[in-house]
Amino acid sequence: MAEGGCGESQKPATVFDFLSKIVRLLQDEEALQPRRNDQVVQFQHPRELQELLPLALNKDPLPDDDIVEACRQVIKYSVKTNHPYFFNQLYGGVDMYGLAGTWISESLNTNQYTFEVGPAFTLVEHAVLTHTLNMFGLANGDGIFCPGGSISNMYGIVLARYKKVPDIKTKGLSSAPPLVAFTSDDGHYSMLKAAHWLGLGTDNMIKVKSDNEGRMIPSELVACIQKALKAGKQPFFVNATAGTTVLGAFDPFEALADICTEYHLWLHVDACWGGSLMLSKKFSSVLKGISRADSISWNPHKMLGAPLQCSAFLVREKGLLHHSNAAAAHYLFQQDKFYDISYDTGDKSVQCGRKVDALKLWLMWKARGDSGLEKVVDNAMECARYFCDRIRNRPGFRLVIPEFQCTNTCFWYIPPRLRNQEETPEWWEKVNSVAPKIKERLVLAGCLMIGYTPLSHKGIKNFFRMVVTCQPPATVEDMDYVIEKIEEYAIDIV
Amino acid sequence: MAEGGCGESQKPATVFDFLSKIVRLLQDEEALQPRRNDQVVQFQHPRELQELLPLALNKDPLPDDDIVEACRQVIKYSVKTNHPYFFNQLYGGVDMYGLAGTWISESLNTNQYTFEVGPAFTLVEHAVLTHTLNMFGLANGDGIFCPGGSISNMYGIVLARYKKVPDIKTKGLSSAPPLVAFTSDDGHYSMLKAAHWLGLGTDNMIKVKSDNEGRMIPSELVACIQKALKAGKQPFFVNATAGTTVLGAFDPFEALADICTEYHLWLHVDACWGGSLMLSKKFSSVLKGISRADSISWNPHKMLGAPLQCSAFLVREKGLLHHSNAAAAHYLFQQDKFYDISYDTGDKSVQCGRKVDALKLWLMWKARGDSGLEKVVDNAMECARYFCDRIRNRPGFRLVIPEFQCTNTCFWYIPPRLRNQEETPEWWEKVNSVAPKIKERLVLAGCLMIGYTPLSHKGIKNFFRMVVTCQPPATVEDMDYVIEKIEEYAIDIV
Repeated sequence: MAEGGCGESQKPATVFDFLSKIVRLLQDEEALQPRRNDQVVQFQHPRELQELLPLALNKDPLPDDDIVEACRQVIKYSVKTNHPYFFNQLYGGVDMYGLAGTWISESLNTNQYTFEVGPAFTLVEHAVLTHTLNMFGLANGDGIFCPGGSISNMYGIVLARYKKVPDIKTKGLSSAPPLVAFTSDDGHYSMLKAAHWLGLGTDNMIKVKSDNEGRMIPSELVACIQKALKAGKQPFFVNATAGTTVLGAFDPFEALADICTEYHLWLHVDACWGGSLMLSKKFSSVLKGISRADSISWNPHKMLGAPLQCSAFLVREKGLLHHSNAAAAHYLFQQDKFYDISYDTGDKSVQCGRKVDALKLWLMWKARGDSGLEKVVDNAMECARYFCDRIRNRPGFRLVIPEFQCTNTCFWYIPPRLRNQEETPEWWEKVNSVAPKIKERLVLAGCLMIGYTPLSHKGIKNFFRMVVTCQPPATVEDMDYVIEKIEEYAIDIV
Repeated sequence: MAEGGCGESQKPATVFDFLSKIVRLLQDEEALQPRRNDQVVQFQHPRELQELLPLALNKDPLPDDDIVEACRQVIKYSVKTNHPYFFNQLYGGVDMYGLAGTWISESLNTNQYTFEVGPAFTLVEHAVLTHTLNMFGLANGDGIFCPGGSISNMYGIVLARYKKVPDIKTKGLSSAPPLVAFTSDDGHYSMLKAAHWLGLGTDNMIKVKSDNEGRMIPSELVACIQKALKAGKQPFFVNATAGTTVLGAFDPFEALADICTEYHLWLHVDACWGGSLMLSKKFSSVLKGISRADSISWNPHKMLGAPLQCSAFLVREKGLLHHSNAAAAHYLFQQDKFYDISYDTGDKSVQCGRKVDALKLWLMWKARGDSGLEKVVDNAMECARYFCDRIRNRPGFRLVIPEFQCTNTCFWYIPPRLRNQEETPEWWEKVNSVAPKIKERLVLAGCLMIGYTPLSHKGIKNFFRMVVTCQPPATVEDMDYVIEKIEEYAIDIV
């Protein structure tokens, strides 16, 4: 890692010294543990930020001091997702132990594909997958860490397809009957992207109607299946969701599993967001029936605070991952190695090189234990419930879903001048512009980040989606702060 | 990031203190910059290693000291890929600036999907992609960072398919004519996995014969295209390779581009391995014609030493990435944001959450400049050429490809007792077992790691593949060391 040249001598301690400077910089810039009175973001519009950052790449090298200064500018203008007032996405701050895990795996810079180059990481991945499979009730299953939930969900579809029509692996879809899959209209858009990439076509990813709370309606699924069958198509896959992206809804897994059994369909559960509730005795009941799934995606990088990316794909049937995805490359998966090659897991993957994503979760789990992870999940849920309860009857606030479902709380804020008026389409158009305007003000002030969105397929106009995650652990005072800030910044909005 | 609980107070400096311990541990364990007299690996067989590592996850938390000790064990038994004597894969050690980039981006834990949450990273990705596109001669193109070369290559196939038959996005492949793609028989196996996942079927990824050096034979490609056309199939995509995985061959891009023009086929170049030669005036001539490609995959995490994962996908036609892949999720890509939403690049991606992979390359490039990166590439090439020249006429060594092609050198070692014999099939069977045996001894001794493989489709038995990368910079003495060690550990092998 030294400057080097053929024969040039190494300078010991250079790497350590430089990295130590970077760690000190992260600390000095309050990037490791921002305080409540720091800004969540120092917002600059794209064109202005382009001027502020030293973006250009040049012919000649720069001295280390300039590099440290460039890092300082990047840190300064980055969003502090680990700030206590960042509630903008389905992820937030990082767990300290998880972060340590990434620093180690990045330093050791290796690959999950063979035991040969990743002996410790291979066993760590196996240990954390085994513990996870047990937790979800798939004790005899298999799994793999993936670069994010969208690709984890694609694994589910590919395995389901391979199971239904194995020949598609070699012959392709053009010789197969038209396959159709199902997801709810509140399910994640990755299902559409997957249908495109995997060659099914987005028209063949049927969107099943969900109820007002965002849960797939089982009778609607049956109707969609029967309609597809009548049209000569071949249903093969149902995606259920544990914690929908916007409303935080949990599909009725037992009912959906019954339907999948009846029609011989693969049941995948996209638990990328809500799967972390499995860690909580108090809140896991919404996941009842998930253990009947054929496959599950879970992103510890979301609610739980593992550093991005940390996404586990789990499958009930052992061996299927390998059978479906293997290409048996000789140069990597030699059959005449001197160790037990059943530990070479890379051929289960659609990737060749695969980042080490297991270590961070393993360290978090070791350091906190089941009980510690349960505690941070419970805290996120309790804070979100407190928030939900506090705004339920508060003037100007209106919940999109009256009941508490998950740590995402969806609500409109109706500014004083729009209250007590007839709710005409024109009135809703005005409400529609409220959240974007408040959001703009909050970001420019740098005091709070929460998201907003419409739900167009439900005919619902822009509302706030406030998301509590496990890291940094929220407090009830933080919840009160959000209410205060929204009221403060909305005071003069029409 | 504190221990937390609803309302529990934070402990300032905790995160910094803990991470500082981890950095010190990495230094103490010689993991940041291993010395030549350290072991590359302290090998343990899987079952023994299972006993040595504290793998279990438990109900209760562990104290921080135990976590640090667990990290020490993981580091101890991990392969030191940044050791000067690790020549085992198409990646090796990490560039110190790149490593700093990952520590920063992991700490700031955010996502590339919107300018909103990744303002600085969005601009950094744009800057490094622009510089890269210019370097490859695709100045008006577009690009995206991907989780590895296999997925980068899939992007190429998906865009080519969308360009040829846009309706496949909505209708799927079952209504389309049978599409076929082409790659060489020495091309990377990710093409087969892609054909499976994307629904083409592996039978429709036609393997075109390559010459003895591993280069696709243009007349064979034409023959394959014509055969497919006669069979009523629709050719749409050719994958050329810049630096094949095993032999390090460069396909004849000009000739392949001419064929693709004639038959209206998309030309993708898998330059994951060899693309780094573009940085070198001395060695880039092998890439002549690559600027005629419709798309290119390049992995700076391979030869160049960017930390895993760092894989760029580049495409000539601007706008196509977005048109092909967009799903327009309202909750993320709101059209009524207060800033210029053309900077929200996430809908170009098949992923939703996307890791920040650009910062590490940007920092490396800023710190070293074009000239510094050229220097490390030239050094790797010069060392590999020196190695190749030294073994060309050395007793017992035999090059698989007589001419120097890239930093992968493929060779057999014939132990003394097998020399000067008739090269019968039985003799080759004996030679076939030499590389695995020497490899075992080298790994058990922990003094050197190099790979081996057969090339079965060429009827070639096990040989060594020795790979030089840019980090840590190799020396001629390191090359001599490899020869010495092989001879030393092979002395009594039959």
